[in-house]
Amino acid sequence: MTLVVTPGMGIGPEITAQALVESRGAGRVVLVGESAPIRTTAAASGLSVVELDSPAGIPALAHDAVGLLAPSGSDEPTPVAAIRVAVQLCLSGVAEAMVTGPIHKGRLAAKGFAHRGHTELLGELCEVRHPVMAFAGGQLRVALVTTHIPLADVPDAIRSDRVCHVVRVAGQALRDDLGISAPRIGVCGLNPHAGEGGLLGDTEVREIGPACAALRTDGLDVRGPMSAETAFMDMHAGRLDLVVAMYHDQGLVPLKLIDFGRSVNWTLGLPIVRTSVDHGTADDLVGTGRANPGSMVAALDLARRIATRRQRVENG
Amino acid sequence: MTLVVTPGMGIGPEITAQALVESRGAGRVVLVGESAPIRTTAAASGLSVVELDSPAGIPALAHDAVGLLAPSGSDEPTPVAAIRVAVQLCLSGVAEAMVTGPIHKGRLAAKGFAHRGHTELLGELCEVRHPVMAFAGGQLRVALVTTHIPLADVPDAIRSDRVCHVVRVAGQALRDDLGISAPRIGVCGLNPHAGEGGLLGDTEVREIGPACAALRTDGLDVRGPMSAETAFMDMHAGRLDLVVAMYHDQGLVPLKLIDFGRSVNWTLGLPIVRTSVDHGTADDLVGTGRANPGSMVAALDLARRIATRRQRVENG
Repeated sequence: MTLVVTPGMGIGPEITAQALVESRGAGRVVLVGESAPIRTTAAASGLSVVELDSPAGIPALAHDAVGLLAPSGSDEPTPVAAIRVAVQLCLSGVAEAMVTGPIHKGRLAAKGFAHRGHTELLGELCEVRHPVMAFAGGQLRVALVTTHIPLADVPDAIRSDRVCHVVRVAGQALRDDLGISAPRIGVCGLNPHAGEGGLLGDTEVREIGPACAALRTDGLDVRGPMSAETAFMDMHAGRLDLVVAMYHDQGLVPLKLIDFGRSVNWTLGLPIVRTSVDHGTADDLVGTGRANPGSMVAALDLARRIATRRQRVENG
Repeated sequence: MTLVVTPGMGIGPEITAQALVESRGAGRVVLVGESAPIRTTAAASGLSVVELDSPAGIPALAHDAVGLLAPSGSDEPTPVAAIRVAVQLCLSGVAEAMVTGPIHKGRLAAKGFAHRGHTELLGELCEVRHPVMAFAGGQLRVALVTTHIPLADVPDAIRSDRVCHVVRVAGQALRDDLGISAPRIGVCGLNPHAGEGGLLGDTEVREIGPACAALRTDGLDVRGPMSAETAFMDMHAGRLDLVVAMYHDQGLVPLKLIDFGRSVNWTLGLPIVRTSVDHGTADDLVGTGRANPGSMVAALDLARRIATRRQRVENG
């Protein structure tokens, strides 16, 4: 098993080094990114790193070694070039999964990075039009129908076909990658109280309700549209396996409240396995020793579990 | 101390009777509503109730008695007429606080009830134009800038003056009614990541930011606009006394997730003290014995604490 990790920016390199020390012996890891911060933070954490000249050196690494590969020959900022290399290693079968640290969209945008974030770039690199942004925490799992857009743009973006897509992709990931044979999925309404029968908005009646009905007809265990409060309470009580939220804050406020520091950003619908930390670059914490590697530990763990499961299935 | 309670509809009468049995001896209580369900549920809970012909009988009640008053001479549905009577008892000084059980807006709307809910009706009866809907749980406190409106109508409703009003009213309530001398208030952004400096919407730059700056100039401890995830994590960690959320789900999903069954709907900015349960009529639970009186117990307790505090202040 080879995992490729892009430590990213800010606290990314230090939490990656700490997380790899914690989870040592769980397979071969290739770090892709700027060499200097990775070398420094690895040394500070007591992590041995083998520097590689090119991807051709990966198969020769020991099975529990950590390699370091600096992306070369690219005009892009290194953190972006690193993501491109990592995706390529997964698509070509050199690595079984990729895990990403945080990037700072604002600082990258100033250097010409045109994507809204990791997820959109991964979609483009994998030629998947609508990857699904999901999060898995210790207690909650959430998939989002819309992600990083202004709230005013959300209502028009909630279409029956998008809701169906997100539920189908999430259902398949729960079955194939987590082994939940008949996942129970709760779909939130867009409006307060899921629109209260049309009194507080009609997106539930017009778009979300028909999507849920169609999915149920296909035999999926889909509940909703539900008021978001009920959906998250039900998930927290173990009565759902995943909540589909219509927009960022509806899904991520409860997730972070319950699972912060141990939740994983998990991209669904890609041909490759990709997990990520659930937090930003936290530039004010760099080098203070106060950055928490919990989400990176969880992201490494989930990526390994999914990749192992896929290998087992492939090997029959 | 006299508390007036409108048990409301659905599970309202039964949870009120159960809650009053739990909190017996904490002052005089007058129940206002339809007699039959109150009588029945009181008998089932072993609660003695003294029937009153008119409000004139209230002062003659023993100091720990529970009276029952049926509103009369009104064309309105009884649950609405009861709220009107309760407000009048508070405004006239016969009662020190009111506590309301759940009403079913849909069923009342069918009988001509034109208000969006309790809070709006209370505002009208008290001649307060913009009462503030807030919630106090065991661990979280939230005030809402917008309440029961479609999500598509939220962005235009977020104006600097409305944000200032909600923060000022909430700050005063925390100081005067809860005794928090310098309340720390976190104000959420409207957009994901509080707009990320304008990249994900400009309501923070245009409306919420200037409101927060003006409030800070006035000496209030106001933080934000913050990403809603951070605001709720900070509140949960004890670093804030209240979060101001821009809309229903942003505030109530985290509140109910952490505090369901013990949180209280608390109306701020009225001349009277008013608390309420945080849930609906749960018609499917009526008579099953499974309705949880926790929120009614908490609503009675908060109303009593605030009224006691106000009496102390008045008495010097």
